[in-house]
Amino acid sequence: MTYCLAMRLPEGLVFLSDTRTNAGVDNIGMYRKLHRLQPAPDRLFVLQSAGNLATTQEVLDRIRRDLRLGEDDPSLETLATVGELWEAALYIGRLSLETTKSHSDGLGESGGKATFILGGQIAGTAPDILLIYPEGNYIRASESRPFLQIGETKYGKFLLEVAGTTQSTLPIAVKVALGSMVTTARANLSVGPPYDLGIYRTDSYHLDDHRITDDSPVLTRLEQLWRQHILAAIDDLPTVTDSTETLRIPFADTPVPPPPR
Amino acid sequence: MTYCLAMRLPEGLVFLSDTRTNAGVDNIGMYRKLHRLQPAPDRLFVLQSAGNLATTQEVLDRIRRDLRLGEDDPSLETLATVGELWEAALYIGRLSLETTKSHSDGLGESGGKATFILGGQIAGTAPDILLIYPEGNYIRASESRPFLQIGETKYGKFLLEVAGTTQSTLPIAVKVALGSMVTTARANLSVGPPYDLGIYRTDSYHLDDHRITDDSPVLTRLEQLWRQHILAAIDDLPTVTDSTETLRIPFADTPVPPPPR
Repeated sequence: MTYCLAMRLPEGLVFLSDTRTNAGVDNIGMYRKLHRLQPAPDRLFVLQSAGNLATTQEVLDRIRRDLRLGEDDPSLETLATVGELWEAALYIGRLSLETTKSHSDGLGESGGKATFILGGQIAGTAPDILLIYPEGNYIRASESRPFLQIGETKYGKFLLEVAGTTQSTLPIAVKVALGSMVTTARANLSVGPPYDLGIYRTDSYHLDDHRITDDSPVLTRLEQLWRQHILAAIDDLPTVTDSTETLRIPFADTPVPPPPR
Repeated sequence: MTYCLAMRLPEGLVFLSDTRTNAGVDNIGMYRKLHRLQPAPDRLFVLQSAGNLATTQEVLDRIRRDLRLGEDDPSLETLATVGELWEAALYIGRLSLETTKSHSDGLGESGGKATFILGGQIAGTAPDILLIYPEGNYIRASESRPFLQIGETKYGKFLLEVAGTTQSTLPIAVKVALGSMVTTARANLSVGPPYDLGIYRTDSYHLDDHRITDDSPVLTRLEQLWRQHILAAIDDLPTVTDSTETLRIPFADTPVPPPPR
């Protein structure tokens, strides 16, 4: 599996992806799932992928081929010609759907699906993040929950719900994202380091990229802090069974025990 | 959906279940998913259920009918006659499979499935917790991870992995369990309060039961502490992008931007 997330903040965008792929537990690989695409100096796209690895690679190859062909044929729709980010999402959604359909003979109607997060900025428009479904349509991150997740989204969702606010600074958002990633990797072996981190500042048209490796002291420190604060929170909590406000209700739905034999 | 978990500790067992059921978001109900069954003073069973509500109710009705019939027919296998907890698990697994099979005309071969956690103690044996699959077989909680989960298990797993150790006291385990429950309910609307808590002390043959309601100050305090400590952990973490050990690697797999137009 995979875990990718993206956050949209006043200062810019944060992207974080793991790199683990697996086709069964005996076939674990490492692939980049965070891709930068910059077809012109005034537009930058970040594409994160989850799902069928073959589909995601073919979609990237099709995007790049279109960019090459578009140099000679300006009428061709490419990432260099789309006017807004949502049009880029529809374009990539179309390529994704075309790719899975082209393999339906081998993979069946429901096989080969991939989901993407597309983020970035096109000059004249605001930076944004969108989730592209395998069906080819998209949604934008909401106003109040300015994050998107693909892949193994459940393990790390709580942390984003609690800490992923619209007003975070970029450095704080990076730490929230890493916390969500570590939470997921701890609970699910199919998600793992190294992690690819991309930070985009509004109007910069430059992606600040980092690879956080398995042996990173930051990761070790994060795991320690997490554990320490979770145990402290448990310690701080009043003992539930001492508190007077828990109700004691009889188990009305169980049979009365027979007399001792 | 549902979230139930159980923990096995040196002092005894902890059970926690939510009460929310749903058949679509417009049909939300509240049902007890933690059941105490005490067919004799020297044996106590706790059954937690997830999955098809009709199946879980019918399984409980069959268990009780067998107990009544068994009073006249001691050769009948019931919760009063099984010798060990794993035999009780196989017995309930058989009832569960019989129930789903009896409805396969209406629900199809894969419909109506239910999963259970069975815990408790039979005099002469140690307390234990077992997970009963819809297929009728079971597993025991492992030595190193002495907890079991059914239903929406992913959201709250990290907390159990970090804090659910074999050496916890019962009051600490209760707080860990509640933390895992609140984490799940926060991230998934289909899991919600009130929560049923059962605490079993080894050799007591008595279940200490509590219902923790929506307006419980303990729940409010737990949510506050959780948020506070998560934000503190994020605050304590060194800023990732300042640290020298993150690698900066070029995006080798993206096309070189064309010259500005």
